[in-house]
Amino acid sequence: MTEFELIKKILHSQKTQRGDVIVHAGDDGAVLQIPKDQQLVVSTDTLVCGTHFFPDMPAFDLGYRALSVNLSDLAAMGALPAWAMLSLTLPKINNVWISKFIHGFFSLAKKYKIELVGGNLTRGALSITVHAHGFIPKNQALTRKAAKIGDLIYVTGTLGDAAYGLSLLKEKSQHKNKKYFLSRLYRPTARIEVGIALRALASSCIDISDGLISDLSHILKSSKKGATVFLDKIPLSPQLKKEGQEKMALQGGEDYELCFTISPENQNKLKKINCPLTYIGKIEKEKKLIILDKKNKPLKINQRGYDHFHKRPNN
Amino acid sequence: MTEFELIKKILHSQKTQRGDVIVHAGDDGAVLQIPKDQQLVVSTDTLVCGTHFFPDMPAFDLGYRALSVNLSDLAAMGALPAWAMLSLTLPKINNVWISKFIHGFFSLAKKYKIELVGGNLTRGALSITVHAHGFIPKNQALTRKAAKIGDLIYVTGTLGDAAYGLSLLKEKSQHKNKKYFLSRLYRPTARIEVGIALRALASSCIDISDGLISDLSHILKSSKKGATVFLDKIPLSPQLKKEGQEKMALQGGEDYELCFTISPENQNKLKKINCPLTYIGKIEKEKKLIILDKKNKPLKINQRGYDHFHKRPNN
Repeated sequence: MTEFELIKKILHSQKTQRGDVIVHAGDDGAVLQIPKDQQLVVSTDTLVCGTHFFPDMPAFDLGYRALSVNLSDLAAMGALPAWAMLSLTLPKINNVWISKFIHGFFSLAKKYKIELVGGNLTRGALSITVHAHGFIPKNQALTRKAAKIGDLIYVTGTLGDAAYGLSLLKEKSQHKNKKYFLSRLYRPTARIEVGIALRALASSCIDISDGLISDLSHILKSSKKGATVFLDKIPLSPQLKKEGQEKMALQGGEDYELCFTISPENQNKLKKINCPLTYIGKIEKEKKLIILDKKNKPLKINQRGYDHFHKRPNN
Repeated sequence: MTEFELIKKILHSQKTQRGDVIVHAGDDGAVLQIPKDQQLVVSTDTLVCGTHFFPDMPAFDLGYRALSVNLSDLAAMGALPAWAMLSLTLPKINNVWISKFIHGFFSLAKKYKIELVGGNLTRGALSITVHAHGFIPKNQALTRKAAKIGDLIYVTGTLGDAAYGLSLLKEKSQHKNKKYFLSRLYRPTARIEVGIALRALASSCIDISDGLISDLSHILKSSKKGATVFLDKIPLSPQLKKEGQEKMALQGGEDYELCFTISPENQNKLKKINCPLTYIGKIEKEKKLIILDKKNKPLKINQRGYDHFHKRPNN
């Protein structure tokens, strides 16, 4: 199969055709119509084999995850996803692998009626770059820079499962809950609906891709504030709680939950959001991040979460 | 230097700040305002070390080229570029190399007032993916699918220099004009102004990235037409003419000139375009591509131009 035939096959397996795509994938570029009164939100992320995933990661999950981590960025901005582009670099054409990968990618794309509007296919070390495009009403985007003193800090879902899954993979562990932890690593949930609901409510928002400490620190730095976080308030899954691996929730990324700040007077409006949301701390004037343990003693923390050019701190 | 510090350094070296960028690079996504009555044109391309360029390619040129090949796609659609995203995968941080790369990238971005609005930095085998975003007035995009019988086929500039430059590199040749040919390979000119001028004139357009035969064939396939091309009309640089390497113009890509079709009644309107444009053939009813040599004898041609998963036919 040639490159062009493969691209054709990929595009033919796509079910979604949006009315706002004027020129679909297959030309030099796609032509897209932004709805009136909406702004465009764009985001990109790259997954490299050996850096972000192991070579034996199931292809379906990889396709799913490559899109999901990008949708998570859109969620953190409060955007509604619309279009994606996929740049796939492969050492060789393996039809079975590619079919599974594309199936995983489209299974998530379909959920949000996202159309794949372009991309490219190249020979080289396995790597995936996705671009996601979404919409947001004018001036409603959530950013990292507007957290205010006294704002409450919340996170969605539970933290740490994905990082623990990664540590089990690295240790080649046969843990009885390995399947559960891996499912959280392989198929993170982009919190699109939460992001949209937070548009009018949150003062700042970020997705937790590098770990709570690292990502909350981005909010604090951009907003020029500090924070106190209570370790025992950080939501853990029952499975992770059993392991006594709270640190996974602090320094391990990959969960792609949202961390946001909200003023106390908006707090009761969070009830209408159909997703577990947990208060974990508050924004402070003094520009540092303090994490208090159960005895109210500050933890010694490494501010650095995940850095692609450094070893991961925790695993 | 950490990943975050490097990203900061790259963004600080950017001079362009556009008024239509509502949230600049540095958050989870960029927020962008499309001008009224314009549609968005998006395109992406990946350059992989060892597949698209040799490891010793000068970093400045690589940065320039990575953006230029994407702008060329926008040019082929008739779009005016506005924003770009850069996904850079590097085996390690080399500050000198990165500075030169970014300098090359921004030197071209500046020319078109393009703002870098996002991207990412990852560890892995050297590879660059760029996304380019541009604007086009509603329903004026040039595509591949509307060439009509009797339309004239034109190309911009001269063809084949870049492919010949690549062949000299592969042969490790010390050719006296090597510098000239390499400059055409390393810094292709995206024909932005021509694409914009062609909006109201051309019936179809493509950029020649894979070779004239391959790319013109895309127009023919999409438009369900055939064509006759006259070999001796294909414009060559004086330097390439001297080498007797016409085949480079047929099957070698990398020049990133435009190939477009235009109805005979619009032909005289091409005079106002400030770029060498050459008539090379015409669109025919019968669905095949015929290239006639100087004696009007059809050449035997390999329809396949460049395919990333096959060996290049010519070098």
